Amino acid sequence: MNILLVYAHPEPQSLNGSLKNFVIKHLEGLGHFVQVSDLYAMQWKATLDASDCMARQGIRFDPALDHAFESGTQSADIALEQAKLLWADALILQFPLWWFSMPAILKGWAERVYAYGFAYGVGEHSDVRWGDRYGEGTLAGKRAMLMVTAGGWESHYSPRGINGPIDDLLFPIQHGILHYPGFDVLPPFVLYQTSRIDEAKFARACEALGQRLDDLWITAPIPFRPQNAGDYDIPALTLKADIAPDQQGFALHIGR
Amino acid sequence: MNILLVYAHPEPQSLNGSLKNFVIKHLEGLGHFVQVSDLYAMQWKATLDASDCMARQGIRFDPALDHAFESGTQSADIALEQAKLLWADALILQFPLWWFSMPAILKGWAERVYAYGFAYGVGEHSDVRWGDRYGEGTLAGKRAMLMVTAGGWESHYSPRGINGPIDDLLFPIQHGILHYPGFDVLPPFVLYQTSRIDEAKFARACEALGQRLDDLWITAPIPFRPQNAGDYDIPALTLKADIAPDQQGFALHIGR
Repeated sequence: MNILLVYAHPEPQSLNGSLKNFVIKHLEGLGHFVQVSDLYAMQWKATLDASDCMARQGIRFDPALDHAFESGTQSADIALEQAKLLWADALILQFPLWWFSMPAILKGWAERVYAYGFAYGVGEHSDVRWGDRYGEGTLAGKRAMLMVTAGGWESHYSPRGINGPIDDLLFPIQHGILHYPGFDVLPPFVLYQTSRIDEAKFARACEALGQRLDDLWITAPIPFRPQNAGDYDIPALTLKADIAPDQQGFALHIGR
Repeated sequence: MNILLVYAHPEPQSLNGSLKNFVIKHLEGLGHFVQVSDLYAMQWKATLDASDCMARQGIRFDPALDHAFESGTQSADIALEQAKLLWADALILQFPLWWFSMPAILKGWAERVYAYGFAYGVGEHSDVRWGDRYGEGTLAGKRAMLMVTAGGWESHYSPRGINGPIDDLLFPIQHGILHYPGFDVLPPFVLYQTSRIDEAKFARACEALGQRLDDLWITAPIPFRPQNAGDYDIPALTLKADIAPDQQGFALHIGR
């Protein structure tokens, strides 16, 4: 199978650098094809702006009205990442949790590569259908997984931990960035207390990670509710009143 | 009073550009002093990397071990933003919600300006005290507020909306980026359906926003629980078992 690893850490000689090398070797050992977008090494342009549309002539810049994807006037670096996504059967986003989200360079990868017509603004938008998204869309049928390192303790990210539960912190990424254009999203692989990793702990992490990679095609995805299968009122896009009544929040959008 | 507006939109002739101009004029009309960090106009460097420490000599880069803030070897652009934060009595972060979070350029502002020793790694870290953070720290006593625009409908971000409740989407920013180094965080000002804003709707938005600015010093902050006032077990940093028992999630960290 084809796997795209999008990797966002500035230091090759870091825990993340070592984990990245492990992932590539392990996946290739299983016979898969791996492409790596090493965003820092590529000096990826992190900021979405008017220069991303090569045909621009000084008119007001609005990424949602620009349609550079559809007109073939995107920057070449954006088109290349989109081609990698189309090639991939699975996507892995690997990053350190910085201020409770992904590093800016990776956020900017999503903002620029996820063009209008490619990752949003896809399909019919009307009062009865709100586009192909949340389980449908350009990247439907592919799998995605987060690989995250955190300096804090696991308890700090537990259901009653002060930082907030890790599943909720990752929801805007797993649901809002991965499920949105169609990915089936696997449970994340998260390593905690990363400033205290010795050889033995690194070996255990690689063992657990290797198992997750072995199981990439059989692990059950997080059962996010599809938008267009009847669970939501359209166009309000609220969960129907008879489903999980009186509940609210992110967990509501996980069915079964 | 002194107000720092950190603004992240690439197009001056946008709704965000117009709102920014309104905010500056309104605050100055109230007699306040306003500094604006217009990140796109400043061509703010969005990516945190080894070049941010000017004294670096080819050793392995770890932002949490680098201590460029303490040794005075930070990039000048970072030091300038820290000085603005120290000058300010209130901080406003203004941005369009892109993929359910802040634009990369603003995330990169936080990553670079929030240096070790300035915004984290402050105060005693031991098994009985986990630093001055979540209500304490360098920026304690100052106020902060988000000003956010979203293309989607308000219902899509409601408690049962498909995108997730706006308060939960903003929690990693309001709690994790603003409250963490000490800010008192005011409820956010959020505008929805921003592609459908006509003159009348813009006027109503400015009226509501003007009221929020008038009330900047009297609006009650979101009552996030302080870390070090007895609500949490340390070092696990989980909410004590007798507080809101059997509950979990972001809302748990809002008291009263």
